[in-house]
Amino acid sequence: MKLKELGEFGLIDLFRKKFPARGKRIVLGLGDDCAVLKSSPKNLLLFTTDSLMEKVHFDLACFTWEDVGIKAMSANVSDIAAMGGLPLASVVSLGLPKKMEVLDTLNLYSGMDKMARKFGFSIVGGDIFLSDKVVISVALLGEVEPKFLLKRSGAKIGDLICVTGDLGESQAGLELLQRYAKHLDDKKGKSTPGRSFGKQTFNKHLSPTPRLTESRELVRKLKINSMIDISDGLLGDLYHILEESRVGARLFEDKIPISKKVLKLSSLLKQKPLDYALYSGEEYELLFTVDSKDSNSLMNLKTKVSVIGEITDKALRMEMVDRNKKVRVLEKRGYVHF
Amino acid sequence: MKLKELGEFGLIDLFRKKFPARGKRIVLGLGDDCAVLKSSPKNLLLFTTDSLMEKVHFDLACFTWEDVGIKAMSANVSDIAAMGGLPLASVVSLGLPKKMEVLDTLNLYSGMDKMARKFGFSIVGGDIFLSDKVVISVALLGEVEPKFLLKRSGAKIGDLICVTGDLGESQAGLELLQRYAKHLDDKKGKSTPGRSFGKQTFNKHLSPTPRLTESRELVRKLKINSMIDISDGLLGDLYHILEESRVGARLFEDKIPISKKVLKLSSLLKQKPLDYALYSGEEYELLFTVDSKDSNSLMNLKTKVSVIGEITDKALRMEMVDRNKKVRVLEKRGYVHF
Repeated sequence: MKLKELGEFGLIDLFRKKFPARGKRIVLGLGDDCAVLKSSPKNLLLFTTDSLMEKVHFDLACFTWEDVGIKAMSANVSDIAAMGGLPLASVVSLGLPKKMEVLDTLNLYSGMDKMARKFGFSIVGGDIFLSDKVVISVALLGEVEPKFLLKRSGAKIGDLICVTGDLGESQAGLELLQRYAKHLDDKKGKSTPGRSFGKQTFNKHLSPTPRLTESRELVRKLKINSMIDISDGLLGDLYHILEESRVGARLFEDKIPISKKVLKLSSLLKQKPLDYALYSGEEYELLFTVDSKDSNSLMNLKTKVSVIGEITDKALRMEMVDRNKKVRVLEKRGYVHF
Repeated sequence: MKLKELGEFGLIDLFRKKFPARGKRIVLGLGDDCAVLKSSPKNLLLFTTDSLMEKVHFDLACFTWEDVGIKAMSANVSDIAAMGGLPLASVVSLGLPKKMEVLDTLNLYSGMDKMARKFGFSIVGGDIFLSDKVVISVALLGEVEPKFLLKRSGAKIGDLICVTGDLGESQAGLELLQRYAKHLDDKKGKSTPGRSFGKQTFNKHLSPTPRLTESRELVRKLKINSMIDISDGLLGDLYHILEESRVGARLFEDKIPISKKVLKLSSLLKQKPLDYALYSGEEYELLFTVDSKDSNSLMNLKTKVSVIGEITDKALRMEMVDRNKKVRVLEKRGYVHF
């Protein structure tokens, strides 16, 4: 069935029945002018928004509708994780074409709902409108205990610069998808190279997992001074910390955690693995700075964390120390939207 | 200057400088992964979202960019008003074309910011992305004292059905704009019939004022059982109350407050004035039901309120009593998106 046949209110009713908002903090979910939530007296509120636009952020030749939903919600959860908090509830604005299959809208919503459930919150409201291309705007409300709140502006000279996980897979996966999208077709007549090539190769790009659990471990066990999630690339996001904290950074090339998949794929893609690690956006790993006295605590974490450098007093300057101890100045570079 | 020249981060910096988030509840505004707000222990949180898409919700032949911003924010404030609450902070997702003038983006943002200031809150965060057509998704957070919270589901048999203001202008204004858009041109080579025809004629459609102040008077002085804002048309939104409350409604034709402008314009537009009042969407007036014992209190309000009918026990049935006391059944009908 096409959306045109079901109609706006039919679709809202369907979402409401299939994906009811649940949780002890929710007074009222979908079906009124606003959602209503109980507030928590001691916590600070976190509020963020992030959107995905067809052909700009995702191509349906590579993504399933569920992937798109997962990615839309993940980007927002990652922002909450980057502040040290926990998500509370989400509202979604969906721009959908008339001819879209109702089943596809359900898969899209299901991807968002799956991420919400995974991280213990619900979609509590939304807006649906007509659009030539699919556009998804998610707004996410979260909370954080004041003592755990982490800003970009708190980095201090001498801090250790740390990053979770391994880097580079999102961009390498995207390039591989683009390269193979034309050659691979599945039986439905739709090319889904992600499936054919082995989905795990592209997971980081197609359906990333925000580091929320990891963030909560970090804020509990370390004295973190600043944090950001990697959405514009390691250097792009490091630069945001430097700007807000008015400090500089020195990185060590041999400490940057490059994904093993990227090391394998880089010869195929004819790019340096390090470049993927430095510039790949949408990684959704956490980049943070801790007091250097915390170096022992860094050893005893469940979360994989690499110390990749240190904060310097040279405001806005990013340096890289290579394997031969030679120092070069790095350029900030990331995804350019316009 | 075009957006392409300034870039995404340049634009964010410009917004941040020109429209800083201010308010004693704001811990952190634009410039981090999330905005941070102080929560209020006694109040419930309200959370809503509403979007505007170019060519679907607005046509630049009629709207200025500031109008678009005002309208985008007003729709959300109106949702908070419909719950009996007050807005707290907003995040906005903007899909913008590469070739858009930076000045136009500033006017758009300025319209949203103007509404926010008017109602005592700030834009505290956002997201900017590339889009062929302009798309604005606003998410708004608000608060309400538990005793003032108003739902759609509380209407009781015997309640008086009331509406603020006068109805019909938004749809009549839109039709007039569409009819005259081709004939009227200003000196800039762009048709802005709203300006030439006298802007006040179109104000309700172009830059509506949400009934927030009015809502606060109503919740303080009356025993309201249910409330909604008129965005889908009087009958469309009344039907939402009937659905959620499992009741029916009887309206009195001679009590429906039809706008004087609509009475004047309807012969030109060749439509019945009553039809505008019943079906005009985007009116952003408040539709509510009160205990019939409140009829005296209704007389002593600053807000213009009309009693237009009563709640009946015939679930989902809408009846109209005409000037000759004849009863007919009304059909729900509103704006259809798909």
